[in-house]
Amino acid sequence: MITRTEAQAMDQADKLAHKVREFSLPKGVIYLDGNSLGVLPLAAVERVKHAVEIEWGRDLITSWNKHGWFELPRKAGNKIARLIGAAPDSVVVADSISVNLFKVLSAAVAKRPGRKIILSDSGNFPSDLYVAQGLASFMADGHELRVVEPEAVMDAITEDVAVVMITETDYRSARRHNMKEITAQAHEKGCLMIWDLAHSAGAVPGQLMDVNADFAIGCTYKYLNGGPGSPAFVFVHPRLQNEVLPALVGWWGHAKPFAFGQQFEAAEGITRMQCGTQPMLSMQALDAALDVWADVDMNELYAKAQAMCALFTELAEQRCGANGISLFGGRDFSTRGSHVCLKHEQSYAIMQALISRGVIGDFRAPDLMRFGFAPLYNSFVDVWDAVEHLAQVLDGKLWDTAEFRERKAVT
Amino acid sequence: MITRTEAQAMDQADKLAHKVREFSLPKGVIYLDGNSLGVLPLAAVERVKHAVEIEWGRDLITSWNKHGWFELPRKAGNKIARLIGAAPDSVVVADSISVNLFKVLSAAVAKRPGRKIILSDSGNFPSDLYVAQGLASFMADGHELRVVEPEAVMDAITEDVAVVMITETDYRSARRHNMKEITAQAHEKGCLMIWDLAHSAGAVPGQLMDVNADFAIGCTYKYLNGGPGSPAFVFVHPRLQNEVLPALVGWWGHAKPFAFGQQFEAAEGITRMQCGTQPMLSMQALDAALDVWADVDMNELYAKAQAMCALFTELAEQRCGANGISLFGGRDFSTRGSHVCLKHEQSYAIMQALISRGVIGDFRAPDLMRFGFAPLYNSFVDVWDAVEHLAQVLDGKLWDTAEFRERKAVT
Repeated sequence: MITRTEAQAMDQADKLAHKVREFSLPKGVIYLDGNSLGVLPLAAVERVKHAVEIEWGRDLITSWNKHGWFELPRKAGNKIARLIGAAPDSVVVADSISVNLFKVLSAAVAKRPGRKIILSDSGNFPSDLYVAQGLASFMADGHELRVVEPEAVMDAITEDVAVVMITETDYRSARRHNMKEITAQAHEKGCLMIWDLAHSAGAVPGQLMDVNADFAIGCTYKYLNGGPGSPAFVFVHPRLQNEVLPALVGWWGHAKPFAFGQQFEAAEGITRMQCGTQPMLSMQALDAALDVWADVDMNELYAKAQAMCALFTELAEQRCGANGISLFGGRDFSTRGSHVCLKHEQSYAIMQALISRGVIGDFRAPDLMRFGFAPLYNSFVDVWDAVEHLAQVLDGKLWDTAEFRERKAVT
Repeated sequence: MITRTEAQAMDQADKLAHKVREFSLPKGVIYLDGNSLGVLPLAAVERVKHAVEIEWGRDLITSWNKHGWFELPRKAGNKIARLIGAAPDSVVVADSISVNLFKVLSAAVAKRPGRKIILSDSGNFPSDLYVAQGLASFMADGHELRVVEPEAVMDAITEDVAVVMITETDYRSARRHNMKEITAQAHEKGCLMIWDLAHSAGAVPGQLMDVNADFAIGCTYKYLNGGPGSPAFVFVHPRLQNEVLPALVGWWGHAKPFAFGQQFEAAEGITRMQCGTQPMLSMQALDAALDVWADVDMNELYAKAQAMCALFTELAEQRCGANGISLFGGRDFSTRGSHVCLKHEQSYAIMQALISRGVIGDFRAPDLMRFGFAPLYNSFVDVWDAVEHLAQVLDGKLWDTAEFRERKAVT
């Protein structure tokens, strides 16, 4: 069994270990929920203060130009592009992930007028399914969402499918779909392909251009650390950008927004995926958070993610297997995202006990505990200590503060 | 002609004069653009700092409950409700004004399946027209946007119209439509009525329940001072809330969001008008900004707005009429919003000159200068001084700093 000292050695060898200094981590907490809400980057504190006091407070309306507010959605989009394997000027930050899904889904179904099926799978995040149901129900012309099991997706991609809408990384099992294979099959059958990268962006190397994806969406408040509810991103492949139009358009997607013309005229490129005015305080926080990624090699990051998931799983099985804990999802971490779900019938209570000890993960109904590992600020010792807490909770041990403090002092 | 001393006397008699102390106003600036971006409330500075450092930074994911993030859209909505004449629990804050318009417009057209016309007028803000065009174009079943002149709206409300979509206060002329008359006519003809309150909310007394409006939308970054791009609001009349469903639905509008069910099931009430996760830093700034309104009487506020508009117009005509300045829009300020547009063929240059002197209004193509008067923080002396600057610019006078400083010292 790997010892805490060995985990410390892994941290010492970790080339990403220094990145933690760019974040404000709460004291006494092992935060394994960065896949739900990423921690606060120090740069965001200063940026938001500047946005409030100088940009809003002092420069007011002139900030739209003076502080680049108008450009920010595209500027931030370009910072995300590299991380998700997108081309320059193919990503824009705006609105929520659901709103962006609606945009690309409506754009995609309009491009396949003869086909009525939107295909997804049961591993998709439910809200994506809701968006598709809402759109199909509104269209009231026979469009429908077809949901199959994740393993059945390839066979379900047939010539009656207009759009294949899949989340790469499952929010529970962390299973990653094979983007290349599914996208190729979608194109083979004449379907358009939408990828949801919510649990992928900032966790796994980007592949959008490599796999020739048509559309993608994702959120920025998880691994990208953009802050609570920070605006989401939307990607459209350059070959499609001027060929598609969402049902939801607006001022910011107009070719000449300040001409105030009465007729909508779509801007060229990714700009047309913008609609209304964006929340600039949240947008500035995100833009600052994205600067943290400038020197991050995504393959290096993913290697650390896999190593953390493997360490956590191995230790949890060794130390807690006898207490009814089991892994939910496979153990080939090269085909998975950066979180691990454990199954136990008392998962809700166990997670509450962990949280009260400062180990923050989350509970996913009915019986899963989810632990996210953010390679930029989680350490291997965090992983080790989290399992130690889990083992103590399962053993019904009271928390021995002195013992833990002594251990922490060693690090 | 009213003297500066008389304007000072008006400020001394103004019951709202003390409210300016709740804002952070930039030094040396007469800010007459609160109808574009409202100034920074002091409470927002502290609130955002707390949201960043304590809520995001320290409490992280637990803040969704601990700091009421989930409730915030409805809590802020209820603060807005009184200001716009809405019933409790009939307003929610979310997304942008364009996205909210898309929600209510799609919900409305779905309720009138036999009718194909969306009626609006040429005084509407162009982005609203774009949203309707985008929706109609997507539907591709004969739906179309019909745009008539503002004076022709009443006659154009006929039985082939599904939805009447009108902005109460014209963003240029400030002309207010008669909400009661138009809504009654819409209902008489079996149409649904959507009001856009972008230039009304926080400027004129609310009437939504009084006029029996079906839907309304509005933005919060103008007179409500919610900050740059702060999330917008959406109102649905209580009698309709459970009867309508937008094309755009999502997780936050689900009856049981945390059950993670695969089927969308709309929440009761206004909650279903929510879709995805909201930008919490911007949302917290807005919520703090709304507290400034708690003790504001909307009739008192509107009385001051009218008095400021009247003073500005009178002085501008008296002092600058000979220089080719004319009023764009009528002079019965009881039927207008809280801004005034002046027309001059050199409006662009004149506005630049004013801005360089610290008088901030905005230019609206092709030849308008727009001046917004925010009764919470603008004074009658601001109005007087703004016209003094305008007169000096038009007379080609250089700015006499010493003279102005002396004047300011008197206040």
